[in-house]
Amino acid sequence: MAHALRLAERGFYTTQPNPRVGCVIAQGDEVVGMGFHQRAGEPHAEVYALREAGARARDATAYVTLEPCAHHGRTPPCAEALIAAGVARVVVAAEDPFPQVDGRGTARLRAAGITVDIGLLRDAARELNIGFFSRIERGRPFVRVKLAMSLDGRTALANGESKWITGEAARADVQRWRARSSAILSGNGTVLADDPRLTVRLLQDEEFTPPLRVILDRQLRTQAGSQVLDGSTPTLVLHGAAGFCADNRFERVERMAVATQNDALDLRAVLALLAGRGCNEVHVEAGPTLCGALFAAGLVDELLLYIAPLLLGDSARPLLHLPTLSDMARRWQLRVIDQRQLGADWRLQLRPA
Amino acid sequence: MAHALRLAERGFYTTQPNPRVGCVIAQGDEVVGMGFHQRAGEPHAEVYALREAGARARDATAYVTLEPCAHHGRTPPCAEALIAAGVARVVVAAEDPFPQVDGRGTARLRAAGITVDIGLLRDAARELNIGFFSRIERGRPFVRVKLAMSLDGRTALANGESKWITGEAARADVQRWRARSSAILSGNGTVLADDPRLTVRLLQDEEFTPPLRVILDRQLRTQAGSQVLDGSTPTLVLHGAAGFCADNRFERVERMAVATQNDALDLRAVLALLAGRGCNEVHVEAGPTLCGALFAAGLVDELLLYIAPLLLGDSARPLLHLPTLSDMARRWQLRVIDQRQLGADWRLQLRPA
Repeated sequence: MAHALRLAERGFYTTQPNPRVGCVIAQGDEVVGMGFHQRAGEPHAEVYALREAGARARDATAYVTLEPCAHHGRTPPCAEALIAAGVARVVVAAEDPFPQVDGRGTARLRAAGITVDIGLLRDAARELNIGFFSRIERGRPFVRVKLAMSLDGRTALANGESKWITGEAARADVQRWRARSSAILSGNGTVLADDPRLTVRLLQDEEFTPPLRVILDRQLRTQAGSQVLDGSTPTLVLHGAAGFCADNRFERVERMAVATQNDALDLRAVLALLAGRGCNEVHVEAGPTLCGALFAAGLVDELLLYIAPLLLGDSARPLLHLPTLSDMARRWQLRVIDQRQLGADWRLQLRPA
Repeated sequence: MAHALRLAERGFYTTQPNPRVGCVIAQGDEVVGMGFHQRAGEPHAEVYALREAGARARDATAYVTLEPCAHHGRTPPCAEALIAAGVARVVVAAEDPFPQVDGRGTARLRAAGITVDIGLLRDAARELNIGFFSRIERGRPFVRVKLAMSLDGRTALANGESKWITGEAARADVQRWRARSSAILSGNGTVLADDPRLTVRLLQDEEFTPPLRVILDRQLRTQAGSQVLDGSTPTLVLHGAAGFCADNRFERVERMAVATQNDALDLRAVLALLAGRGCNEVHVEAGPTLCGALFAAGLVDELLLYIAPLLLGDSARPLLHLPTLSDMARRWQLRVIDQRQLGADWRLQLRPA
């Protein structure tokens, strides 16, 4: 199963909106077939593994990181393929909560007399598709906020200068997190201040499905000529109900209205909309207002915090705008799930406690 | 020599103002004597090791972490003791820059026909006594600033509440850094806000030399009844030239005037004064003003930064007051020399780049 999970990771940047899935078919200790899902619309992991195994799939054990599908989607159901190939046993890491699967895959296998075991390395399998599970089970994407700051928690000088706080290794690392995401979310304040591209630039020539650029711009204030409006990659600008723009600056991007709440776009509505478009992991690169609002609303699932070993002082820009706390017991508590050094910088990966 | 360094560490909390020194005497592969310096006024490491070796010191090799002394201080010179014992070779990790030694120890040994090799594990030996070397070579103590903050760089809520940002493991760790220091430095603002004790509470029942409590209080505003004035441990209050106090609140502590500069005590003068009193490592636990002033003046040798995995928001208190930067190139650049997890918190140890 560990092998199957490693295979699944080969689809890390490309399966969107589908989950990453790997499959290993074994006769005793011998691997006779391997496969992973690479791209939506293309065959699932089981199909590749069965093709490689051929006749040796008969009476074999199939290890699959996610419950085999039982429905006719863009490809035929994998449960049927496993049955037709005559495998004796299927080991599944995690159940597929997708409404058209959700137990039907394993039920179909068992009905055909195949032994099915579920739960081996389940946590790792769920982690691999944390966004997919979030979207299907909670109706919203997994929200990862990326922030880069100095030791004293500052993201830019008072004059706005922020190039660069972190070093090259940290900035290259960010590209990989962007690449695995379904969408990169930002606000018009950041677009105005930094004119970012919000595209993926991987150092190695790896394939990836370009994430959707999503800009929250309630009043459609994004300036003409901003790089996010250049149409070079799919882009969605979300605005309030009254959104109107007299000129053609948004002609290369998609625009949609979202509900507002307290003079800001309703962030729950934004996430519901993105889930509806198949977004699994949403990568947020925004300023202290939008990031703070996400934290304050309890909508952040992960904080990716790059810390550069330097000091900028208390006149520099703060990390997050958050409501004033009157009591230490009300603090936002997180837990570190990973830390590592990237060049001279540190990366902490945190989730709500 | 590694063994000798470990022996030296046994005097970590007690040798003040002397350096930590260890000595191993060996006949080939066999250790025949071991010693370390425990307390000022008591014998040096070499003397203990020679006592243990007895007649087996003849023709042996002595490994000493610091150049043996050549002068009559409170104890007789160790160089003479090594000569008298008939050792054939002395291996020294680091030269002793103390003016009364400074090469005389090794010169005396060589004059007596002993082979002397210098430099084995020199960096580790200097690190062990980083404050001693700083005081002797630079005329000022090694200044270590300890700060504890949230992920967003905040040390207390807007209302001043700061108990507790970090957990028990981090707070116990701080006690060990206090214990190894010659002085604990704070400002009257912190005393007023938190009424700290600034004493050492070690979890294990270990011996330590109580560090000098040093309070910078230019206008002698520390309130009567403050714990730092309780006389329970040696305390020094430094004030400006005009320092005058009508009541007896300072009667249990020592007071001294220091020069002022721009309406604040001259921090270089403060450090020179502490060096003059034999302070090797100064541990700073103070607020954003004093800590920021030390950074801005380039007087911080090490930052011990405890990071708790929580967010307090931008209305909470900042880590450091520093002058506004107009240019990213002027940032205060540090480098991480150590990091570790302490309970749920992280500790970064940083030095100027």
